Amino acid sequence: MGQDDHPCYHIDSDMHQLHLTSPTRIPGASGYLYNPSTMLQVNCRGFANAIVMQPEPSSYSSSPVLEATTFIQPEKQHFAHHPGRFFYIKDETSNEIFSLPYEPVRQKNVEFKFTVGVDCIEWQVQYMQLNCHLKVTLDSELAVEVWQLNIENLSDKERKLSVYPAFSIGYHSWMNQSAHFDADLDAIIATSIRPYQKLADYDKVKALANTCFMFSDRQPQSWSANLSEFEGEGGIHNPDGVTSEHLGCEQAQYETPIAVQQHQVNLGPKQQYQLPVLFGLAKDKAQVKDIKQFYFADDSSLEKLVSVNCRSARIKNAPIQISTGDSEFDEFVSTWLPKQMDYHRQLQRLTTDPQTRNFLQDLIGVGFLDQKTVRDRILLALSQQTRNGALPDGILLNESAELKYINQVPHQDINVWLPITLQAYLDEHNDYAILEHKVPFADGEESVTVAQHLQRAMEYLISNLDQRKLSLIGLGDWCDPLNMAGPEGKGISTWLSLATSWALQITAKLIEDFDPEKAHQFAALSVTINEAVNQHCWDGQWYSRGITDAGKPFGVSEDEEGKIFLNPQSWAWLAGAVDDNQFRDSLAAIEGHLLTPFGTMMLAPAYTHMREDVGRLTQKFPGCAENGSVYNHASIFYIYGLYQQNQGDLAFSGLKQMLSLSHDNESRQQLGNFIPNYYRGKVDNLEAYAGRSSQLINTGTIAWYYRCIIEELFGLKGHKEGLLVSPKIPTDWKSVSVIRRFRGATIRIDYTQEPANKPMQLILDGKVVEGNIVKGLQQDTEYQLQVKLYLPV
Amino acid sequence: MGQDDHPCYHIDSDMHQLHLTSPTRIPGASGYLYNPSTMLQVNCRGFANAIVMQPEPSSYSSSPVLEATTFIQPEKQHFAHHPGRFFYIKDETSNEIFSLPYEPVRQKNVEFKFTVGVDCIEWQVQYMQLNCHLKVTLDSELAVEVWQLNIENLSDKERKLSVYPAFSIGYHSWMNQSAHFDADLDAIIATSIRPYQKLADYDKVKALANTCFMFSDRQPQSWSANLSEFEGEGGIHNPDGVTSEHLGCEQAQYETPIAVQQHQVNLGPKQQYQLPVLFGLAKDKAQVKDIKQFYFADDSSLEKLVSVNCRSARIKNAPIQISTGDSEFDEFVSTWLPKQMDYHRQLQRLTTDPQTRNFLQDLIGVGFLDQKTVRDRILLALSQQTRNGALPDGILLNESAELKYINQVPHQDINVWLPITLQAYLDEHNDYAILEHKVPFADGEESVTVAQHLQRAMEYLISNLDQRKLSLIGLGDWCDPLNMAGPEGKGISTWLSLATSWALQITAKLIEDFDPEKAHQFAALSVTINEAVNQHCWDGQWYSRGITDAGKPFGVSEDEEGKIFLNPQSWAWLAGAVDDNQFRDSLAAIEGHLLTPFGTMMLAPAYTHMREDVGRLTQKFPGCAENGSVYNHASIFYIYGLYQQNQGDLAFSGLKQMLSLSHDNESRQQLGNFIPNYYRGKVDNLEAYAGRSSQLINTGTIAWYYRCIIEELFGLKGHKEGLLVSPKIPTDWKSVSVIRRFRGATIRIDYTQEPANKPMQLILDGKVVEGNIVKGLQQDTEYQLQVKLYLPV
Repeated sequence: MGQDDHPCYHIDSDMHQLHLTSPTRIPGASGYLYNPSTMLQVNCRGFANAIVMQPEPSSYSSSPVLEATTFIQPEKQHFAHHPGRFFYIKDETSNEIFSLPYEPVRQKNVEFKFTVGVDCIEWQVQYMQLNCHLKVTLDSELAVEVWQLNIENLSDKERKLSVYPAFSIGYHSWMNQSAHFDADLDAIIATSIRPYQKLADYDKVKALANTCFMFSDRQPQSWSANLSEFEGEGGIHNPDGVTSEHLGCEQAQYETPIAVQQHQVNLGPKQQYQLPVLFGLAKDKAQVKDIKQFYFADDSSLEKLVSVNCRSARIKNAPIQISTGDSEFDEFVSTWLPKQMDYHRQLQRLTTDPQTRNFLQDLIGVGFLDQKTVRDRILLALSQQTRNGALPDGILLNESAELKYINQVPHQDINVWLPITLQAYLDEHNDYAILEHKVPFADGEESVTVAQHLQRAMEYLISNLDQRKLSLIGLGDWCDPLNMAGPEGKGISTWLSLATSWALQITAKLIEDFDPEKAHQFAALSVTINEAVNQHCWDGQWYSRGITDAGKPFGVSEDEEGKIFLNPQSWAWLAGAVDDNQFRDSLAAIEGHLLTPFGTMMLAPAYTHMREDVGRLTQKFPGCAENGSVYNHASIFYIYGLYQQNQGDLAFSGLKQMLSLSHDNESRQQLGNFIPNYYRGKVDNLEAYAGRSSQLINTGTIAWYYRCIIEELFGLKGHKEGLLVSPKIPTDWKSVSVIRRFRGATIRIDYTQEPANKPMQLILDGKVVEGNIVKGLQQDTEYQLQVKLYLPV
Repeated sequence: MGQDDHPCYHIDSDMHQLHLTSPTRIPGASGYLYNPSTMLQVNCRGFANAIVMQPEPSSYSSSPVLEATTFIQPEKQHFAHHPGRFFYIKDETSNEIFSLPYEPVRQKNVEFKFTVGVDCIEWQVQYMQLNCHLKVTLDSELAVEVWQLNIENLSDKERKLSVYPAFSIGYHSWMNQSAHFDADLDAIIATSIRPYQKLADYDKVKALANTCFMFSDRQPQSWSANLSEFEGEGGIHNPDGVTSEHLGCEQAQYETPIAVQQHQVNLGPKQQYQLPVLFGLAKDKAQVKDIKQFYFADDSSLEKLVSVNCRSARIKNAPIQISTGDSEFDEFVSTWLPKQMDYHRQLQRLTTDPQTRNFLQDLIGVGFLDQKTVRDRILLALSQQTRNGALPDGILLNESAELKYINQVPHQDINVWLPITLQAYLDEHNDYAILEHKVPFADGEESVTVAQHLQRAMEYLISNLDQRKLSLIGLGDWCDPLNMAGPEGKGISTWLSLATSWALQITAKLIEDFDPEKAHQFAALSVTINEAVNQHCWDGQWYSRGITDAGKPFGVSEDEEGKIFLNPQSWAWLAGAVDDNQFRDSLAAIEGHLLTPFGTMMLAPAYTHMREDVGRLTQKFPGCAENGSVYNHASIFYIYGLYQQNQGDLAFSGLKQMLSLSHDNESRQQLGNFIPNYYRGKVDNLEAYAGRSSQLINTGTIAWYYRCIIEELFGLKGHKEGLLVSPKIPTDWKSVSVIRRFRGATIRIDYTQEPANKPMQLILDGKVVEGNIVKGLQQDTEYQLQVKLYLPV
């Protein structure tokens, strides 16, 4: 544990690793691993959250109480019995114990290092003259955690040690749960039956994998499968099982299980000891056996398999890798951002009915990684559109999926996202043929082209306009909990009106070739909407958030709380509704009311009590989530909007502020390995909380972040004719370089920027390019592009 | 802590208290308190479960994780962060700490006494030369726990102490939760908003009391409202807040709350210190203020109020008080049984849609306490019957209640319970007028008499008979999880056929005066059903449990698991289906297969894996709940059946076995203050678990237990003409006495029993009674009755 004024965090760009040297200064600091079925988030102290899709999210490791079925909670709180993965170490001579990584013993004065890698999370802990190295990786497909412990005896005496992997299983069922030691497999095996009462649920429950296992490659000296017996009166921080000579070999028979084994070792001076431990979920014992055989078939297989898992292929193939000289920023964009995007691609927010707006926006980012996935998913979404043009609130990913929770509430914005995602996809991949691809509707046999689906989606948005040409807010828009401004069908949303306007403009361009008249209508209507917004929703210094059923504008200067919202401003820029004065005024209002050192808040001041004509939003905790946090999804819209307004320096500052970097990650209480869905906003009397991360890795932010980086900051955007180059790099950058993978080609690009009154100049493999589009790029070919930028003097 | 071979449990009949002198030998030992809104169950170590009806069950004190909404779980497991009520005590001179009652510090070598009273739970803990007395009572109406701590300095030195009440609040909401110290009230105040997403739920959530409070009558030196900050790195067993000089005065701002205060005191030799602490749930701060003023208006009020709460009125007015010389049995019947019954009367199993079969059966017991409640509830139930005769699966107790969970599954036995309950009510209260009271149906305006409702209920049961005159089991009967024998509409239930037969017999008698022809039909049909059961369901030594959809009998000798079920045997006795040989055989089978030292199992051997033609029952953990536990509700049917077969000695042995008494309460892991819904059954390889209590105080057992005690054991049953005396006391009893309250009269009864070939003799106030009915009893009058019993020689 370092002193509080010494840095406890550093990055290693070569290894793509982040290091934290204190278990107490950023206790929630976590890394996450994933494969197509499983997500494992582990924090520096050893608490873990594992979710397996089968196909609904489930967990094999829980706390010792029946937990509510809910999405992952923001700012998740930890406590001694939170599920975790621990190794107790006992010196059999002195009877001293400590634990890895840090919980549950919490030994003081330990040398500690927590390392987050792309495919691997590691700890190095030095204590009692033992150097312990612990790491975890995830199987490439299954819910199998591969833990490897290495202990080196630093002393010059022989040490007699007991090592006790102790992994939480938790309370899973009042119907049936138990755990025992299986002598065939030398494994702790726990099974449970998910509680149900209706006959119709039997088939679902039957299909669930329900066999949690933990084993090493060798026989343990003793074991315990019973949490309460293992702890005894000593408690989880000093369990009787560990302080006794041997574990009690107790089964859990309807009691809360745990998986603990004792492995004894005599370790000569400087000798090392390895213990691999596998923990996870299987269908049955037969599958546990298969897993054990697969991993422990021969001495080398574990290392081999793990190294295969660690190849980090996704980073090598990322669409952009950057070298700006700002190593933390470079590392985030080149390593952690593609990882987080790929996680979204693979696990789709750990649900089987992702909200359609998230599903579509995530595809903006996924499109930079993987064309086919995006194409398939766009067509999937359209196949769930009804003939009236409405996309559903959630996209069902499989046949048994159903719309749950928030997706049972209709939101008015869903269709907005279709043209935005389509445009990003077409730009990157030039697959205009998709517009003529035919897809059926959910409620009938009729198949129409994607262009026609898009057109109907717009007609549906148009049908939601009131006589003033403002969009009704109904039970909510992008902001789900803004649910009580419009339940009577009269309240309108300024943001949604502007979003509809922008969607119509994009659509007009996309369908121009197919239906020029309709395209013209849409474009004209977008102008009308913009005018209506300016007439009814401009509050003098900024745009309101909407007008309630009772006709009262909100998100306006006369409100004491929720005075100003971010989205209406940035989307007015996107929709082209602002004149120069309005842009300046609204930007000034944002900077005056919403800007914090950790990013831009979604609204301010946060609501502190229920406002019944705004809704559930105002009941959320002040400064958290939609109620005035730095909600990064909204912040990135704002940054994208800034780029459209050619505010490169401001936009870049926003991109940087969104990351948890060395200088402030203790305030954010998060490492720089992901962008969370929010940081807490600045709220009166809660100043100390400003910037605190939600720790949630699911967010619509990153797709737009990627887009901002690629298309705006570095200005490397796809175009029908090639790669459109239009950078907006900060004015203080002199030379940077990036590698861009685009339509199968690889382009190494060097940017230079110097003062001169000259237009940008592009040089491809030594030849000057006419205009700003690099044409004729071939697949599987490398290019060298020089981008010479000039700052007016 | 006593040694394991010393008794750790004793009873005090004068004080109506149970004492436990070890915190570790029966760690789950608990007492419960209740009022019309709230139930508080606290165990000897300080873990607590509090439920408030508003009107659905809710809790103000939870664990630090969002808990699933479920009924109270059997064999609830505890862990360090389970909700509890603790007082840390620190000696400021030595800095030593310990905690009351025992958790979370778990000091060793403490003098410990846990005392369960009727209206009060207490602890006496002696440690560090401090004698600490702690007690808790519940407000008579509100969810307010009144804790009183008294510390006596046993040493001859002045002691400087800090006392820290530390009460769990827990994680309640991802929307909004916080806690702070309110300086006006010197109170920790925590609020939260129950998470919801749909607009329609807003009104429900808004109506919930959401203000959890904790205060004393004085200002604390310091406080903490933040669980994680309070614990620091020390952990809950040794929190930084307590080991520091003062608590950190930390709010919980969306973090997990706790309520902790520091109260410092200098205590001279032999001096005492009192600290009252109130903890509970209120609508808002204003109500917290009211509560504080009410309790702390003047110096005496707390004691006064608490003593009012402690009057234990319900015991003084119990329908029977007994003196048999067996003090544990006497104390259970006279004190703990009426308490548990009254708890059921007041809180109706902590639900707003009690299962109709429970609702009706509970009334059998409630009828001995309170006529009006039973009459009202019978009429309420009938008003929810539909015109086709079907009673719903649950009775809705208020307008917003709905049928939830298991009540959404139709069960075929519901109507059986109506005549059984009616008959018990009529016997006790002679209110035959109720049969002519008119009640509407749920699905129409038509009002018919109770007798006609009853008749329709029987017609509905008759409509559920197959062509053999056996009752279809459908998706289950009394045994809810026996849900896969009859989903195709062909499988039958032996038990339900017999229950139908018995219900028809009872009904025939009840409606004889109104519709003699129908009464005759019903009686004749019951004979036919009995014959059909004997033809199709007698397995040679005992009755089967039923026949599956596929025509396969189950609960039969050729089954390897679930060979024999208890209910079909005892109900064959009740329905009069058995001849003498069948009675002897079935009794022998029960004794051979089902009897354990802890009572009679519901089935044996317990199922160890799913049997798809029996159902969910077979997936429950072997030996638990319906899957082969000593399920007391079934056991008490059996005992009632034994009494009908004049097996007084066997029946009494069953009554005794059902209680957790001195000689075996360490096996049962429960004190003798309630009958739990089950004890674990005897299962191969799980012998050590046999007898372990579920700790659940909600059970249909106690109504029947009361009935057995009053009507059968002591034979004091109501009759149209008076009190029918027909005792079935054990043959080894020589003289016992009871007080019976009956229709407003109080009768002191002395029983004597000696060998002689003479009929029973009754002497009322010195006069010999003709026959066995005591007639002409007047309200508000006391009588002396001698019952002279003779055993044939």
